[in-house]
Amino acid sequence: MPKYAVILGNLGNTCDRFLSSGYKDQPSKEEMIRQAADISGVEGVELVGTWDVTKDNVEEIGGLLDKYNLQCVSIIPDHFSQKRWGKGAFTSKMADIRAQALDETVIAAELARTLGCPLINLWPGQDGYDYVFQHDYRESRGWIVDSVSKAAKAFPDIQFSLEYKPKEPRTHSFMARAADTLLVAREVNLPNVGVTIDTGHSLVAGENLAEAAVILSDYGSKLFHMHFNDNYRSWDDDMIVGSVHFAEFVELLFWLKELGYDGWYSMDQYPYREDAQGALRGSVEFLMGVDALLTPAAVEELRDVVSEGDAVRSIAWVRSRLFGR
Amino acid sequence: MPKYAVILGNLGNTCDRFLSSGYKDQPSKEEMIRQAADISGVEGVELVGTWDVTKDNVEEIGGLLDKYNLQCVSIIPDHFSQKRWGKGAFTSKMADIRAQALDETVIAAELARTLGCPLINLWPGQDGYDYVFQHDYRESRGWIVDSVSKAAKAFPDIQFSLEYKPKEPRTHSFMARAADTLLVAREVNLPNVGVTIDTGHSLVAGENLAEAAVILSDYGSKLFHMHFNDNYRSWDDDMIVGSVHFAEFVELLFWLKELGYDGWYSMDQYPYREDAQGALRGSVEFLMGVDALLTPAAVEELRDVVSEGDAVRSIAWVRSRLFGR
Amino acid sequence: MPKYAVILGNLGNTCDRFLSSGYKDQPSKEEMIRQAADISGVEGVELVGTWDVTKDNVEEIGGLLDKYNLQCVSIIPDHFSQKRWGKGAFTSKMADIRAQALDETVIAAELARTLGCPLINLWPGQDGYDYVFQHDYRESRGWIVDSVSKAAKAFPDIQFSLEYKPKEPRTHSFMARAADTLLVAREVNLPNVGVTIDTGHSLVAGENLAEAAVILSDYGSKLFHMHFNDNYRSWDDDMIVGSVHFAEFVELLFWLKELGYDGWYSMDQYPYREDAQGALRGSVEFLMGVDALLTPAAVEELRDVVSEGDAVRSIAWVRSRLFGR
Amino acid sequence: MPKYAVILGNLGNTCDRFLSSGYKDQPSKEEMIRQAADISGVEGVELVGTWDVTKDNVEEIGGLLDKYNLQCVSIIPDHFSQKRWGKGAFTSKMADIRAQALDETVIAAELARTLGCPLINLWPGQDGYDYVFQHDYRESRGWIVDSVSKAAKAFPDIQFSLEYKPKEPRTHSFMARAADTLLVAREVNLPNVGVTIDTGHSLVAGENLAEAAVILSDYGSKLFHMHFNDNYRSWDDDMIVGSVHFAEFVELLFWLKELGYDGWYSMDQYPYREDAQGALRGSVEFLMGVDALLTPAAVEELRDVVSEGDAVRSIAWVRSRLFGR
Repeated sequence: MPKYAVILGNLGNTCDRFLSSGYKDQPSKEEMIRQAADISGVEGVELVGTWDVTKDNVEEIGGLLDKYNLQCVSIIPDHFSQKRWGKGAFTSKMADIRAQALDETVIAAELARTLGCPLINLWPGQDGYDYVFQHDYRESRGWIVDSVSKAAKAFPDIQFSLEYKPKEPRTHSFMARAADTLLVAREVNLPNVGVTIDTGHSLVAGENLAEAAVILSDYGSKLFHMHFNDNYRSWDDDMIVGSVHFAEFVELLFWLKELGYDGWYSMDQYPYREDAQGALRGSVEFLMGVDALLTPAAVEELRDVVSEGDAVRSIAWVRSRLFGR
Repeated sequence: MPKYAVILGNLGNTCDRFLSSGYKDQPSKEEMIRQAADISGVEGVELVGTWDVTKDNVEEIGGLLDKYNLQCVSIIPDHFSQKRWGKGAFTSKMADIRAQALDETVIAAELARTLGCPLINLWPGQDGYDYVFQHDYRESRGWIVDSVSKAAKAFPDIQFSLEYKPKEPRTHSFMARAADTLLVAREVNLPNVGVTIDTGHSLVAGENLAEAAVILSDYGSKLFHMHFNDNYRSWDDDMIVGSVHFAEFVELLFWLKELGYDGWYSMDQYPYREDAQGALRGSVEFLMGVDALLTPAAVEELRDVVSEGDAVRSIAWVRSRLFGR
Repeated sequence: MPKYAVILGNLGNTCDRFLSSGYKDQPSKEEMIRQAADISGVEGVELVGTWDVTKDNVEEIGGLLDKYNLQCVSIIPDHFSQKRWGKGAFTSKMADIRAQALDETVIAAELARTLGCPLINLWPGQDGYDYVFQHDYRESRGWIVDSVSKAAKAFPDIQFSLEYKPKEPRTHSFMARAADTLLVAREVNLPNVGVTIDTGHSLVAGENLAEAAVILSDYGSKLFHMHFNDNYRSWDDDMIVGSVHFAEFVELLFWLKELGYDGWYSMDQYPYREDAQGALRGSVEFLMGVDALLTPAAVEELRDVVSEGDAVRSIAWVRSRLFGR
Repeated sequence: MPKYAVILGNLGNTCDRFLSSGYKDQPSKEEMIRQAADISGVEGVELVGTWDVTKDNVEEIGGLLDKYNLQCVSIIPDHFSQKRWGKGAFTSKMADIRAQALDETVIAAELARTLGCPLINLWPGQDGYDYVFQHDYRESRGWIVDSVSKAAKAFPDIQFSLEYKPKEPRTHSFMARAADTLLVAREVNLPNVGVTIDTGHSLVAGENLAEAAVILSDYGSKLFHMHFNDNYRSWDDDMIVGSVHFAEFVELLFWLKELGYDGWYSMDQYPYREDAQGALRGSVEFLMGVDALLTPAAVEELRDVVSEGDAVRSIAWVRSRLFGR
């Protein structure tokens, strides 16, 4: 049985470059936590450092999570929403900023310990570049390896999971795709360093979701965490899961079972103009629906379908589920 | 009730630039016609000029169609598979080739009359360009308008439907998207000239399928014909309908009903490595499944959903059908 | 000789959905106007309603423009940066919001008159949709036509230019591509309503820049305004012109000459992390460099190249300019 | 000084799925070899197994290469143009086909030895999938590792270079991007197994060319070979180098120098409708032009530009070269 979580901030205000004050009003932390707890099936939340949780409010947040019976499943250090990270966090050209990026990671890990949270999800969104001739790629990639190594060595009890994304906010991210991010994780070479698949990022990267999961799992058990959302394949639209794609999510969930993935299924959306709770609930319902299709008998059948590899039959299998037979 | 058809050549051999002799063996015409007729729901076929039907074999083909109880719903003049069209048919820089392209169209229209076929589907695939500075776009677009006008005036009893596609075999086609092709049709300004939507081409063009249908219908009742297939949005993969997308096909079929589209739903695929009949049957089954969802009550409900415009509710509606509740 | 302008806000602070407070500090209006004037070749600015110019500050802004010898070449009504437009301006489901969107346009037109500005550039970025089943496309497109008609009739001395963009901030815009926006302009059917090409939006739409200009010009002299920036073709990166593409800009500028385009070449960038003035200066220098290549002799030569249509020769021509012979 | 080569077949006939007989006539082998030799700067050719070179004609081909003073720089085993490979070569579900794919590789390696050719370029284009649920990705990726290992162990004196491509002829290739292909090479773990970058494939993969080269070089000196062509980023258009992009090729060549890459710069194009020799010559001229920009002084300057990372300056540097200063 998958365990479902949501990123807490998904329930808050959302903005973009044109409407920087945001499309909505910002609810209180407790209100957002209550709304998360209220989504049937959701047992955990992910928190963003600075935005959601700091040294100052960690006890309060911990209390609220307890009150609403939610686990903190991951903390995402804030390496993206402050002016100081604008030209890079781990890969800033300024040594001082790089040091601060590591500090931010360490603080997040300490907060994680406090909250009994097992995982730090690293998405250093500003670590990339926009134009040619902006980086010595060897040096910059090396800086990421160094900082992740230091943090992961200091907190062997915490998992550090690297979330890749091809672009945005930079036109090119250093950790852009599953395999290049796995190379970083392997370079670090610590058992507590792995990779997060965000399904939307993977679609934008042109990956097949299931194959990305297999690659991470097969070359060293490095699939640590999953973020779910949907999009139109060219941009990280962060939409309700299943609003565009169906077959590929069925295949992904099948393979997550086959690979023995036992991490969380965490929703990561940007419901700019939608009722956020409704949008998250829709995603969880979709995934529960797909999961319900994958009975032991169905899994057995699918193994046979995969082994034969006949697309007419593969798609017939999916179609038969589409319309509920 | 939609009427389903298939492009006959979809049942034949398929090749690409790497395997030019093709992935399969070529069945006989009768075998392909028999296979088309054998797909439950299929009542019509589209034929490609030269490949499938010529002055020499038109009687024989007509006889076979009668024998298997199929209508010829469209003829596609061959403006793409011969060396002479390599640098353009209607837009060749050589006046003689342009004249031949018109001749080919006229021949197709005559064959259509002979077969009682109501529509010529014009897909001049070679009419485009690959590099900058290869065409005077004004002149070339004008040539298309001229030739289409001449053919359509000569055959007022036949519909001429322009099929757009953003690219392939050229890196840029002149008739690339719904709206620019509609501009060509409006320039021609004859009631028997309209536009074909190929769902795969529309996805590659970045269009929303349903909106493309509305645009063609709303600005002058110009939606004449529909080709169906699916893809991953960046290339015309010509896959089984529903193998990638679901929600957008539901929306498209809803709007085709709303717009009163009474043309054919014709399958246009390239099952390179698949059993072709199975691949086409899968598409027809998918579309029939979607059509079955669109009961009068569902249509009424969807009008209300559209009128409200709340994405959470819109997607909940789609999802509720996904799992067959 | 092209006339160059910049959008004033390009010189200000920039933000995105992750760093909503922005990557920079916000200079004063006068400082931005001074910087614009200081870019060699720049003679005009575009202003955004609300952000840059309102009824309250229009005299002051006019005075500053005079002081720095700049023309106001266009005003862009703010249909995107306020919460009330979040679910659409001209196409909001709420009649009151639609009326406000028209008011905003009218106000901008009045400000334009006050400033002696000849053109309103309409970019109703929120007018689109994100998911299927959110809009009655017929109705929504009709609303745009209605509002634009009303504004354009009320201000026959002002040009209203519709700026298309395939997506962002919505996953689908109603005015998405050159040709579908031209259809809107033709539906309005007034001589003072035309279309703006933003080169980045056109690249994302999969268009060839030069052909888009020809289509707008050829089907009714509707190319009213030009915005310049560059990108990697999948997203509106709003980069320095020429940082990614070269040949297509050469072809575009050649065709703008051929078509007799006499509007402005206006820079529209988002130099998130760059010195804004430097980024804009770079674009103007690039375009001036391309323009300098297009001597009368070169234009004559290019007409011959185009007429021949031999890609080897076309690209040899471009290459010979690349390395400065 | 880079060494330039061409893939011999680029000089021959070209076809696609619509015009399977091809756009041109097929010249003789000697004619193609003569044409290759005749391109100023070209010193080597790549040959495709079966198409160009077999056990039967290897002596004759060797003689012709000697006659025209060309080296055979690589042999590409034919894993794509025969019906037997249609559903995969190394990853066919049929053990017998997999064995044949290995045989084909071994034959190519023997031919390479005969011709004094140092490298086998493996592009197993059919090794991929089109639909979901067609492959056990673990198993299939393992098969590639096995076959490559066997071949590379048997020919330790020959380099085996894996050429990645995101798609085509399959909708998804197993070796799709630089990093996932590097993972395969590292899994094989032999010094004579590396990776080929085809610049067009890399652009379609959304990679930055220079960064891909750095990744392959930096994580184990695995950049073995380079194929050059250009495209519009969404498909492998195989165009004249420099016809779309400029800045990224300058950056790539800078980094190839920095990394000490001493392999060949080999042209891999598909000049469907162009004079093939002219199209290849154009590419070589472009690369020579870029290489000429990279004087020791320029390289020194660029190191400083990269170290500073200011995009305004980076692009100013590129622009200053664009117009020949």
